[in-house]
Amino acid sequence: MQKSIRVLRVGQRYVRDDRTLTHLCLVSRALGAESIYLEDAEKDVVGTLEEVNRTWGGDFKAVLGSPWRRVIQEAKKEGRKVVHLTMYGLPIQEVVEDLRKENRLLIVVGGPKVPGKVYHEADYNVAVTPQPHSEIAALAIVLHEIQNGEELKRTFQKSRLRILPSARGKRVVEN
Amino acid sequence: MQKSIRVLRVGQRYVRDDRTLTHLCLVSRALGAESIYLEDAEKDVVGTLEEVNRTWGGDFKAVLGSPWRRVIQEAKKEGRKVVHLTMYGLPIQEVVEDLRKENRLLIVVGGPKVPGKVYHEADYNVAVTPQPHSEIAALAIVLHEIQNGEELKRTFQKSRLRILPSARGKRVVEN
Repeated sequence: MQKSIRVLRVGQRYVRDDRTLTHLCLVSRALGAESIYLEDAEKDVVGTLEEVNRTWGGDFKAVLGSPWRRVIQEAKKEGRKVVHLTMYGLPIQEVVEDLRKENRLLIVVGGPKVPGKVYHEADYNVAVTPQPHSEIAALAIVLHEIQNGEELKRTFQKSRLRILPSARGKRVVEN
Repeated sequence: MQKSIRVLRVGQRYVRDDRTLTHLCLVSRALGAESIYLEDAEKDVVGTLEEVNRTWGGDFKAVLGSPWRRVIQEAKKEGRKVVHLTMYGLPIQEVVEDLRKENRLLIVVGGPKVPGKVYHEADYNVAVTPQPHSEIAALAIVLHEIQNGEELKRTFQKSRLRILPSARGKRVVEN
């Protein structure tokens, strides 16, 4: 069964960081999440995502302006497990078997400004190594592990372009 | 046996993109690579990496100023397989068994400006889905897959701080 996975971004830096935001959105989409919750101030990325969907398929969505606490509360109400990514959490390899049993998840991507309460409201605080690196990389590995690599085989409906995998060079066809 | 994995970044945007560069370096370090080759103009990140090593351990290095073609040629001379990450390549899940047999690798992280010759000089052109997303995420998943998750268990020598994994909150000890 296809899992229902949503992503929530909390605690971003005060300085706008559009590149990181775009990476987080595109990784969520490419690796099997159905939507990402963002703050209102981040609405610039919505156009980018619509364009990516038109060109490459699927119906991944950005959901704007819901306060993080309400997103977490509503996720729990509808039976989602809330997985907060943090270098201080339990190693992903130790909790992944439990997470694979869940069909509905909310993955919370923290940042330097993440409120302490997120640690307490999450069902799981999960680390991809206890080393500092990248929330983009951590999100990718957790999506990949939870779905056991199945997300790599997914196809996206109604795309304008499609890549034919090649050992060398670039092959793209129009649908 | 611990694999020897190095990373090379080629074809970055002309606009400086320090945040993405820092993510690539930290992901390489955290997920088991020993060094990353960068252009001279990217030397600002070296101080960040030294500080991360001092605090969190290990001896990950940035190597500056080698032209990409020479890095690839020398890697091949010393028996490394060259793996270029590109959305146009063969699916990682179809080539990973071969890559796991290699003990010495150079992973090439491309960008929008990657020269066409990189596709021809690489031993493998590898895609993490044929969807557009993030070179940071692609690097993370390929490092993770090639090392079969072993990189997550790695410890870093001589750190000043160390995290004790927790179900809730933050626990850090000084060594």
